[in-house]
Order: sequence, then structure tokens, then C-alpha cells
Amino acid sequence: MHPSNQTDAAIAPDTFEVIRKRTLDLIASLSVEDCCAQSMPDASPIKWHLAHTTWFFETFILEPFKKDFKPFDPSFKVLFNSYYNAIGLQFSRSQRGLITRPSLADILDYRRAIDQELIRLRDQRQGDNDIESLITLGLHHEQQHQELMLTDIKHLLSINPQQPAYDPSWEESNAPSAAAAKWIAFEGGLETIGADGDGFSFDNERPSHRVFVEAFEMASRLVNQGEYLAFILDGGYERPEYWLSEGWQWRQQSAMNQPLYWREENGTWSRFSLCGRQPLALSAPILHLSYYEADAYARWKEARLPTEAEWEVAIRSAKTPELQEMSAIAWQWTQSSYMPYPGFKVHPSAVGEYNAKFMVNQYVLRGGSLATPKGHSRPTYRNFFPAYTCWQFTGIRLARSLSHFK
Amino acid sequence: MHPSNQTDAAIAPDTFEVIRKRTLDLIASLSVEDCCAQSMPDASPIKWHLAHTTWFFETFILEPFKKDFKPFDPSFKVLFNSYYNAIGLQFSRSQRGLITRPSLADILDYRRAIDQELIRLRDQRQGDNDIESLITLGLHHEQQHQELMLTDIKHLLSINPQQPAYDPSWEESNAPSAAAAKWIAFEGGLETIGADGDGFSFDNERPSHRVFVEAFEMASRLVNQGEYLAFILDGGYERPEYWLSEGWQWRQQSAMNQPLYWREENGTWSRFSLCGRQPLALSAPILHLSYYEADAYARWKEARLPTEAEWEVAIRSAKTPELQEMSAIAWQWTQSSYMPYPGFKVHPSAVGEYNAKFMVNQYVLRGGSLATPKGHSRPTYRNFFPAYTCWQFTGIRLARSLSHFK
Amino acid sequence: MHPSNQTDAAIAPDTFEVIRKRTLDLIASLSVEDCCAQSMPDASPIKWHLAHTTWFFETFILEPFKKDFKPFDPSFKVLFNSYYNAIGLQFSRSQRGLITRPSLADILDYRRAIDQELIRLRDQRQGDNDIESLITLGLHHEQQHQELMLTDIKHLLSINPQQPAYDPSWEESNAPSAAAAKWIAFEGGLETIGADGDGFSFDNERPSHRVFVEAFEMASRLVNQGEYLAFILDGGYERPEYWLSEGWQWRQQSAMNQPLYWREENGTWSRFSLCGRQPLALSAPILHLSYYEADAYARWKEARLPTEAEWEVAIRSAKTPELQEMSAIAWQWTQSSYMPYPGFKVHPSAVGEYNAKFMVNQYVLRGGSLATPKGHSRPTYRNFFPAYTCWQFTGIRLARSLSHFK
Amino acid sequence: MHPSNQTDAAIAPDTFEVIRKRTLDLIASLSVEDCCAQSMPDASPIKWHLAHTTWFFETFILEPFKKDFKPFDPSFKVLFNSYYNAIGLQFSRSQRGLITRPSLADILDYRRAIDQELIRLRDQRQGDNDIESLITLGLHHEQQHQELMLTDIKHLLSINPQQPAYDPSWEESNAPSAAAAKWIAFEGGLETIGADGDGFSFDNERPSHRVFVEAFEMASRLVNQGEYLAFILDGGYERPEYWLSEGWQWRQQSAMNQPLYWREENGTWSRFSLCGRQPLALSAPILHLSYYEADAYARWKEARLPTEAEWEVAIRSAKTPELQEMSAIAWQWTQSSYMPYPGFKVHPSAVGEYNAKFMVNQYVLRGGSLATPKGHSRPTYRNFFPAYTCWQFTGIRLARSLSHFK
Repeated sequence: MHPSNQTDAAIAPDTFEVIRKRTLDLIASLSVEDCCAQSMPDASPIKWHLAHTTWFFETFILEPFKKDFKPFDPSFKVLFNSYYNAIGLQFSRSQRGLITRPSLADILDYRRAIDQELIRLRDQRQGDNDIESLITLGLHHEQQHQELMLTDIKHLLSINPQQPAYDPSWEESNAPSAAAAKWIAFEGGLETIGADGDGFSFDNERPSHRVFVEAFEMASRLVNQGEYLAFILDGGYERPEYWLSEGWQWRQQSAMNQPLYWREENGTWSRFSLCGRQPLALSAPILHLSYYEADAYARWKEARLPTEAEWEVAIRSAKTPELQEMSAIAWQWTQSSYMPYPGFKVHPSAVGEYNAKFMVNQYVLRGGSLATPKGHSRPTYRNFFPAYTCWQFTGIRLARSLSHFK
Repeated sequence: MHPSNQTDAAIAPDTFEVIRKRTLDLIASLSVEDCCAQSMPDASPIKWHLAHTTWFFETFILEPFKKDFKPFDPSFKVLFNSYYNAIGLQFSRSQRGLITRPSLADILDYRRAIDQELIRLRDQRQGDNDIESLITLGLHHEQQHQELMLTDIKHLLSINPQQPAYDPSWEESNAPSAAAAKWIAFEGGLETIGADGDGFSFDNERPSHRVFVEAFEMASRLVNQGEYLAFILDGGYERPEYWLSEGWQWRQQSAMNQPLYWREENGTWSRFSLCGRQPLALSAPILHLSYYEADAYARWKEARLPTEAEWEVAIRSAKTPELQEMSAIAWQWTQSSYMPYPGFKVHPSAVGEYNAKFMVNQYVLRGGSLATPKGHSRPTYRNFFPAYTCWQFTGIRLARSLSHFK
Repeated sequence: MHPSNQTDAAIAPDTFEVIRKRTLDLIASLSVEDCCAQSMPDASPIKWHLAHTTWFFETFILEPFKKDFKPFDPSFKVLFNSYYNAIGLQFSRSQRGLITRPSLADILDYRRAIDQELIRLRDQRQGDNDIESLITLGLHHEQQHQELMLTDIKHLLSINPQQPAYDPSWEESNAPSAAAAKWIAFEGGLETIGADGDGFSFDNERPSHRVFVEAFEMASRLVNQGEYLAFILDGGYERPEYWLSEGWQWRQQSAMNQPLYWREENGTWSRFSLCGRQPLALSAPILHLSYYEADAYARWKEARLPTEAEWEVAIRSAKTPELQEMSAIAWQWTQSSYMPYPGFKVHPSAVGEYNAKFMVNQYVLRGGSLATPKGHSRPTYRNFFPAYTCWQFTGIRLARSLSHFK
Repeated sequence: MHPSNQTDAAIAPDTFEVIRKRTLDLIASLSVEDCCAQSMPDASPIKWHLAHTTWFFETFILEPFKKDFKPFDPSFKVLFNSYYNAIGLQFSRSQRGLITRPSLADILDYRRAIDQELIRLRDQRQGDNDIESLITLGLHHEQQHQELMLTDIKHLLSINPQQPAYDPSWEESNAPSAAAAKWIAFEGGLETIGADGDGFSFDNERPSHRVFVEAFEMASRLVNQGEYLAFILDGGYERPEYWLSEGWQWRQQSAMNQPLYWREENGTWSRFSLCGRQPLALSAPILHLSYYEADAYARWKEARLPTEAEWEVAIRSAKTPELQEMSAIAWQWTQSSYMPYPGFKVHPSAVGEYNAKFMVNQYVLRGGSLATPKGHSRPTYRNFFPAYTCWQFTGIRLARSLSHFK
């Protein structure tokens, strides 16, 4: 059995069809051109996401398990490989926007063809754990790319002078809690975090293991736009004392004086959203911050970011109901760097390149965001990005050590 | 009257329609995606060329001359301004490939709308020299972009792993002369070069003026692929003694070990062409060389590049019939940097930004290429590019000073 | 009392004189020019180290505590400030090698003058805890720079084509254990790490706190040069499967194909040492590796780097005698990123910039090296550098999780 | 006979001693450290200049002509080779400041040793034209480096926060003419420029040849600091219409808002000079401009830079007395790119790398400067630098085409 996604849960037979279709729903409002462009090396064209997620099923399931497998198009092996060295060469990441051929129509054909073959194989081989667990992995992978499609298209459209809306009905500021944040105290102690054998999880969430957590407090909700604006107006972006040394350098080199999608014109602040340029929503959570900005804000507030263990302990505690916005709004930066859990094992196959090779200079984010597909995240989920990242839906939850321990 | 394009020649009434249509013919084989991508900052998306050439007519003719002018779309003023600071801001050149909206269809609408208005204005104002001369300038500008469309799409397609053909019937190696090149001698003396009052010319070709040219020889044809291959096989790219100091640096930094579109696999050489990847055509002219490569080849041959004055004197000489491939195959690097002719005057209007502000660190190319629209070039035409440029159809014509002068 | 260096230990009255003199001993073999040059932005000129350590005493002790304090030279406040934003501007780090004035002689005068004033103040104010604890901090700071002086001069001399020795009697390979490394098992459990109230420690070592450590094994000695050579000869630098994704990029961009000071000529390997270029000492520990290299080697050996908690637990265990080369040879990379301990407090004064602002994208190293002054390090000591760092005396100690936990 | 420096003039027997001593006089006020540092890749350490000029005599005269030649130190062949590929490898140009060994004292020994040998060889081989002409070439080369020593040390000291004077008695603003500049007209015609057989000249000044020069005007003196300040105060650095496109990019990327050594503090302007920081000298010539700045100023004045032919024709004209400051204050940018004269021949030996390989993307400067040794320059002298260069003593002489020609 595949160690990185053991699951006892039966897979609903139509999950594959539902999730694959959801991906196509996401491009309903986009033009062929929108689907081809790449706004920066960290982002990928929509078309590439559509093809790469398909390549994943073709490469890791059809190729090893289907009799007389023939590739849909041999050139796709290189074109749509993201970073799997064991699979062979990859087309240069920063040039993905130059793949004008195959066309979007070709790639939609590719999706249809692989879907058909995959469904046929799945139906023939019902009960084959290897195949089922790889399908499950592929669907979680697909959901990760669904989120990336939203963050990547947001970045692309934000550069367009017309500031077009991806979806006029998109709401990033729904149901904000205007209530003051409270500090919720947790006693800590010897706790267990990480995923165990039941249900799907990525290899990086395993194995579950014990950690000792000293007593701490966590804010009851995310930092909101009004609070972050106060940081800006207090000179937060001009005062090095709040910034990590590397964060200050980042700020100077990137000429960032406000969050990525914020803009100030004649004293009026606005933010770019998937529904186009909007006024600030002061009581809604602040989004799209780098680790550097999140950390600087925390220092300004005489607080800090939580560790990933604290975050997981909090969400599993009896006090969880006191915590709001833990998932579904913004991924929350933790001060934990992304590293293997004790006893972590890399899978010997090519799928093993999935997580382990990124375990340096990245920071763990917990929770989930407005862009995360429903049901995709879970309390043990470890998202990770480099500290400069701000095009993801990232936000701040504050924490503090409790003073009764020195 | 506009000093930079005085013309007494009557403009055929349908020239505008013919040339504008020719631009559209060039995209017949391209997909929407092909038209949107930008392969490097020096190139532009096809879509941008289509819009920018239209913007030129709208901005320099409709806006000043049409009563109650209203812009087709106010955002286009910034989006499709190439580099005219007097017209205002420009959208970042390196991000032109990110303009997914307006769509290609929108831009074709834009072309149709401006064409209609322009034709109406032209027909109403027959005999208006200002308008006619600006239309003529705009058409020459359009032709320049027709050539750039071919060079830019060639570069984009060359990056695609599928190495697709732009046009399977395109022929880059037609009618090559396999005959040995001969040295044709010219006596030189006091000569006149540059454009005078008859017919269209760009401001940079004016005024005509006297130059003294010492005796020289010029090769009867362009350097061909076989000759250039011999340079490579003789270690030309590994021997600094043939290279300008800056050229050697360029070679090392760009890791260029052969011409831009050439490739060697298992001892077999090929070149990328608008009809896809092809074997070398040894007796056809070598194309797509930087100034550095052209100069290094010339030193290896104990020759040099001609000056632009020598080139123009040669083509006006009685001996011209002895010279082949002077135009219509490859632009020919000269060792003349692009600088104003004595008495050159920049036009005071925004159109004056057309040429003068590029007069540093660029080198003059003479002739014309396979990609140049028929009738666009002429003996006084001064094309110019930076020395590292190799995505244009550039080649080598050798020259030597005659030994009887010390 | 200063929270970051509480100490109950009496400071020997002459410690200051002894440690300050030791700094001067280090430059005995160097020329005025050796002391001025800066080989890369991460390194500093020897002269700058001499001045900056003096600036520390002047700025943090004389300026606040000495009556009628006058700066030795007002321009030194900017010139020799490393990164203390609260103290004001800093001279550009990458241009420290351009400070030809003040001269080395001027800076030796500066040291003498500040030493005299400091000793006078210390003797007048015996028993003043604030001053004594700041002196202690300054001396530990001075010792850190003593180590940096050795690493920086080694880097500078390594670039010189003459490959000069800093000290012909320096021995980097003394007393190597040729014995095979053994795996020493540790049961782990709930442990306490970090520094408590007795003796000097830096703020980043505090407070001591509980951690739960799962069972693990640790290698009995450091990886040696012969073992590392085997990794190279097995193609270690050409096989991406052993490398972190970011490490592979680093390797390609830096063109590193062997450790920093190693060189292969005609099949013979050598290493640059403070005694000049030397043959490899196969049974002596490998030095000067980046985190990327250390991690790649560990993966090749199917092991991993230890966490900093594991390292500290191991050195405090009853089994410590089985561990060799834990300090005094090479700093040992851990897979722990440098982050605050729970309950960590930044000191509110300018000295507080000492550690906290570097807590991102740096990795903790434990132990001590050949270049570390005797008595400077301790079991709780947390050294830290970015993952690409290899000019420090850094090495590898392997660890593994014990298999009885999944 | 050496084609690049034919000379019939007898060399005074002691010229060698005089010029070599003059080099040492230039370092009288410098410390050992001043002589070692390199402030940017375009500059070299003083020590390197001292050694490289000596290497020139050793390599091109002693090595080929002295019986039983032995190199002073074999490692110097690489260390002090500037760019002569035919001589072999060169030490990386940007790392010259890291050559702390050999020391300054070692290099002064090297100079003494080579001088003795050279003088002995010269005296033994009196009348040997090859040797004499190479000595002459070496002395002109030495004088070029004397000028570079002044420009390089000025740049280094300018970075020092103490803004030290190289020589308190140095005067950059002596004898300025406050008189208004006049336009001096020249008729032009068929002229001869370049050097012929008498006296020393570099190969790039040869051969003399005919040029046709259209009528032009030239300013009677250099642009002064007051005039240039008016350009700044008129917003010259903020208005793209005055700048070459590449110049505007340079200005933005380099963040240059005034000439290199100028500074504005609280409304007061100053300039760094070899006598330290000084107030502007409004009627003295402006110094240290890039080509881009010189060109922008000229456009602002509705004038242009002269061509090198115009400059040479002017200085040879009967009207020369009307021209002031033609040499000895500032090198004057011409709009002529640095290219070979018709009939130019590169010398086949290694000395031939002297000039020809820089003939791209550099611009010719004529005249001479405050830093040029007396007697070094001449009317045919072609100095050359890239357009961004401003650490040389460069200034502006304006020209215009005469309107009677179209």
C-alpha cells in the first residue's frame, strides 16, 4: 500500500468525475488567452494546470497499470512534468506561458481522453488498493491545483490595467466578524500531532508523533484589514525595528510598501479581488501577506506567529469553538519551517518527490482559504511556501507565550 | 509638411487597404494563443503588433485631425504605446504577453473600426498633405511591424518543443548561389549618400550629404551556411582572438556556441526555420547572427564588415550587377554605429521620437530580408539594432580596405 | 540585570585583557593589505572586525555609562556598526573592503584607547552588574568575531593564486579517528533543552523549556573526507534525487561540483587549509559544506541530519562518551531552522538586535569548530547560518529515526 | 618596424626613467591600504597599475629580447595580465582588490628589478628599433595608467565617508573662463584626419585618411558647472524627452539624479574632487559625465556633440585660437563610435590586442584632461569608453550643423 496516502475510507465511485469537472468549472469565465499567459515564474498558466493534473493520472496510474499503455502525446511527458526528476526532463518552469501549442482545445481533449481511460481502468480494477490510493492522491493533487488556478489567475488579472473581475459575484469579505479579537489560552503539555492511519493524508503529515507544547495564547480570529491598515499608517513599512533583517531587505528590493494587491491613490485605499478592484473591507481578514509582513505585524503588536504544533493543538482542543476563521478564509503563517516529522519516510517511487524535496527555507501554513476546495484541508494539513510568498491567500493569526513561564 | 517623410509621389488610393490587409494575412496560420504570447522582452506578442500599428493611426492622425475625436478605448493609449514618452505612459514592455484582455477578437474589432474612420477621413480630406504624409509614414511603420511579426513568431515557435512550422511552404533557402564569392573593387572618392526630397524616407535617412570613401572591396554575395559551419568547425566559438572583447563576454554569458536557431545533435546540424526544423542549406546565406558573430567571422576571414557608406556607394555604383543578395535575403551588419547624419533634425512632434532616441549603442544594417515586405526597403534605408541582436534576419557581407592605401 | 546574559559566575578581572589580546594574536602573520580586503559580502575585512568589536564596547558600555563620554571618532559610529538599526545608519556591508581610511594603525590605536577607557570604567565600577554583564556579552561577541576572522581570512587567501598559508603550523586534520562510525541509540522522551540562569548564555538559548524527542540514533563521529569523496565519486553532485530542490538549484547556479575548498586536478584531489593547499586527509572530518550538501550526503546514506533538540539531548545523555568530535572540529548542521524558543523575549535595548532579527531562513548549527575559541561554545549554543553557507567550518553528523516507531 | 608606433623621433635616453618615476610620485600621499582596494570592476587597485605597467615591459620586451630571460615571478604572468588573451589566462578583473599578496613592497621591488633590467637591455641594444619602439609604446601605456590611477583613486576615496583629499593642493577649477561661450564656425570640406608616419601614435589613430566634413559650428569652450546646474534645475534629469532611450534607462537603473561626484544637501550643491569635497565652481567646466548625460544636455541646448572628425578638423584649423579648453581639462565626448579607420591593420603580435578588440559600443573622446600626463595626448588621439562611463574626467563641448545645408 502506498505509504503516503493510506486510506480505509471507501472512495465514492463518482468522486473522480466530480472533482475533475470542478476544475473545468473554474475556467468558465476565462478566455483562451487568459488560460495561456503566465504572470511570473511562481505562477503557471491555467492551461498548464489543466494539463499537468491530467499528466499526473496518466503518468502515475495509466502508464504503470494499463496494459499496452501508449502516451496520449509523447511530448507531454516533458511539457507537463512539474518537477519530478525521476520522470525525466521538465520544460523550463519560467517559460510555461510560451507553450501556445498544444492549444487549450487540445488540452481539453487530453483531459477527456485520459478521464475516459482512467475511469475504464478504475472500473475494471475495483478493489485494487494501489490504483484507488493513487487516484485519491491524484484528486487531492488536483484540488491543490484548483486553488493554484485561482491564485494564479488573480495575479495575472491584477496586472491588467483594466483590472478585470474573474467572477463579479466572488466575495472575499463575507461574514467578517467585526468583534474585537480575544486571546484564548491553552495549557499545552504533551500532545500528539500529525496524521495517523485513518483517512487520506499527505506523506508530510505523517507519522503522528508526540510534541511538548508550552502554555500559549492564540487570537480568536484573523487580523483584519482595518488593523493592518493601522500598522501601515503607524509607519510599519518604514520602521526596520519591526522587521526581520531578511524581511527588511525584501521590502526594500521589492519596493513593497503595502500588501500585494493594495493600492493607495489620493488617500483612498483599495484592494484587487477576484471580483475586481474594491474598497478595503476593514473588518474582513487581511489577505496576501508574505511571512515577512505577517511577522512584522506580529512584532508591532508585541505578539508572534504560532508554531504549527500550537495551531494543531488549538484546533483539537475543547476550546476550539472560541476560535474563528481557522480555515476557509486564509492560510495562516506559522513560525515553523517546513521539515520532516520524526520518522518521516520518503516514498521510494517518483511520487515521493511530492513533498520531501522542498523541506528547506519554506514555512508551514495551516488552515485553508477562500480558494481551497471544500473538504480538501484538515487539521493536520501542512501547506508550505517560501517566506516571500504573497500571491497565495495568506493571513495572520497571532499567538503569545504565556507569561507564567519565563 | 512633415520633414521626415516628404513625398511628391501620389499615394495610390488603395495602398492603405492593401497594406493593412497584408498584416492580417500574416496571422492566417496562427492560433489565438500564438498571438498572445511574448517570448522575450525584445519581442512583442502578435496581438500587440496588430493593436500598436492601429494605435499609431488613431493617435497621430485621427486624434489631431478628426473632429470630435473619441478614443476607441481610452486604456489603449497606454497599453499600445510603444515608447512615445510625449504621448504619455507606456505599459511595461516586458509584460506585453500578459495582456490577455483585450482579446484578439477585440483587437481585430479595433483594427476594423480605426480603418473605417481612417478611410473616411482620408477620402474627405483628399489632397491634405499632412494627413497623406502621416498615412504614408503609418504604412511604412506598419510594414516594419510586419517584419517584426515574422521574427517574433519565429522566436516564439522556436522555443516550443514541438518545433512547429509557421508556414510549411516558407522557403528560407531559395535560389542560393553556390558560386564562390568574388571580391568586387570600388574606387571610392567623394560620394553622396542619404535620402533627398523625392519619395518616402524616414527622417534618419536624411539629409543627403557628402562622404569621402576610401577604396574598398566588397564580397559579391552573402556568407553562406557552409562557410559559417567551417568557422564553427575551426573552433571559431572557442577562440577569443577572433572576437571583440564584449562579444567574447556575450558568448560566454549567453552560452552561445552556434547561431541562434542552429542545433547540433550527434554530429548533425539543423536550423529552425519558419517551415520548422530543417537540415542546413549549406549554399544558402547564414541568417540570425549577432554583430559579434558577424565581426568574429570577418576577422577569421581576414576581412571586415563594410561601413554603411561603403554599402550605399556600392549599391549605387555601375558595378552593382556584380553584387548579389544585396536585399531580400538578410539584413547586413555594417560597422557603422547608428548616429545622426550631419544636419539631421528631429521632428518637434511626438512622431519625432521615432528614430533619434535610439542613436547610441546600435549598429546600422543595410539591405533587407526575406521577412521585409516588398517595396519597403531602399538603398538609403537604415535599419538598426543592438550588437547582441540575433532574432532578426541578419547576415554577413564581407568587405576589405584596398591595400594600395596604407 | 540584562536578561540575555545573566551570570552568577564571577568574571575573572583580567578576562577582558586576555580575550582582547587574543584577537590581536590572530593577526600576527597578516600584512596590512591582508587586513583590508573583503573577499565577498558575507565576509568582512580583518580590520573591520578589529574595529567593530571595539565599537561594541564603546557604543554599548562607554557611551551610556561613562560620564562626559566623547566618541573616539564620530564617523566610526556609522562605519563600524554592523546591523544595529537602533544605533543609526550603517556603512554598506558589501563595501567594507573599501574603507582604506582609517588605516590599520588607526584602528589599533582605537582598540588601545577604548581598552584603556573600558578598563578604567570597569575598575571604578566593580560590582556593577549592568556593566559586568555587558562586558561579558562583549567578550563573547569578540570571540565570535575571532572565529569569523579565521573563516574570512581563509576565504580571502583561498582566492589568491599563490594559495598562501595563514599559519604553516595550523592543523585541520589532527587526531582524526579512522575508526568506523557507529550508530548510538537514544531513547528520547520528555527532555529539557536550552539555557537556564547559571553562567553566560545568549538570549537565543533561553529560556530552557521542555521538548519531547522521539527515539533516534546518532553517528558516533563526523563524516570524514574519505566518505564524502565516495559520495562525489558515486556521482553525488550530478544526481538530483539526493538534493533538496533548492539545493539542486544552488548547485547549478554556483557551479559547485565539490566542497568549497576542494579542487581536482588530473585526478588528484586537494583542499585549501589555513596552512595552504594540502592533499585530502581521508580520515579527518569533511569541512566547509553547505546545508544543501550536508542534506544531500545524508540522503545518499539513507540517513538525515539531527534536530537541534536531538543533538542537545545526545550531548547531555549518559551515552555522551560514545560520541566523538561533538565540538572543536566542525559546526554540525541540524535540520532545525533558527526560531525563537517558546517564551523567548527580545531585549528592548539596541543589543536586542543581536539575534532575533535573523530568525528566518537560517539553520541551527551545534557544537563548535577548530576555529572556535576555547571555552566559547557550550551544549546549549545555537550557531546559525543560511543554508548556502560554506565558508564556515561546517560538517556533518548523521542521525536516523528509530524504526520501532512508524 | 612596429606598425603601431612608428617613430622617427629620437627617444631621449632618460625618458624611461623620468616617466617611470612620475608613476611613483603619484602614490606619495597614499597608504598601503589605499593602494590595495578596488572600488568597482571598471577601476583597478593602484598596486595593480604599478605591477601591470611593469608586466608590460617584462612581457613584451624582456621576455622576447633578453637572453636567458627568467620571469621575476611566474605567477605575475596571470596576475598582472589585463586582457591579453594571446599571453594566456588573466586573473578575474573584478577580484583585483583581493590580491593582498604580493604586497605593495613586493611590487615596488618588482618595478625596481624590471627597470634595472630594462635599462641594461636598452643601453646594450641602442639603435635597435624594435626595442626602442616597444619602450616608447610601453611609456605611452604607462602614461595611460597614470591617468587611470588618478581616476581610480578618486573613485575609491569618494566612497569613503571621510571624503579624504588625495592632494589638498589639487586644483580642478583653475583658470576657468567665465566668459560666455561663442559659436565658432567651420566650413568643413575634404579633410585629412588621423596620424601619419612622424612621431608616436597608437595603431587606432592610423592610417591618416580623407573625410568629408559638412559645415559646422563648435562652442568656444567647455560647458561649465553653472550651465549644467541650470539643466538640473530645469528638471533635466526628470524629462525623458532630452534623453536617449538607453540613457533614460541608465538613469533610472543607476538612480543618477546628478553628476557622479555631485551631492545636494539642504539645497547646497557640492562636488567631490581630488582635494576633497568642495563647493561647486560655477564657471569651471563640468566633469565626470556619462555620454548619456552629455547628449541629454546637448539636446536641452538644441545642439549636439561633435563628431571626432569635426573635433580634429577644428583643432587643426586656422581658427583654433578661438577654441579654449580643447585639452588639459576634460575629455570631450564625441558622437562617433569607436571603430577602425579605413585601412586599419591590427598588429599580428599580442600587442595587437591593445585597441582593436574594443571597437564596439564605445565612444570616442577627444582632447585630454587634468589627469592626463603632459605631452601624452595629441590632436589625433582617440580615447574611448562605454557610454555609461563617468569616473573619467569627461566633459562636454557642444557642436551644431550649419543651417545653410539642408
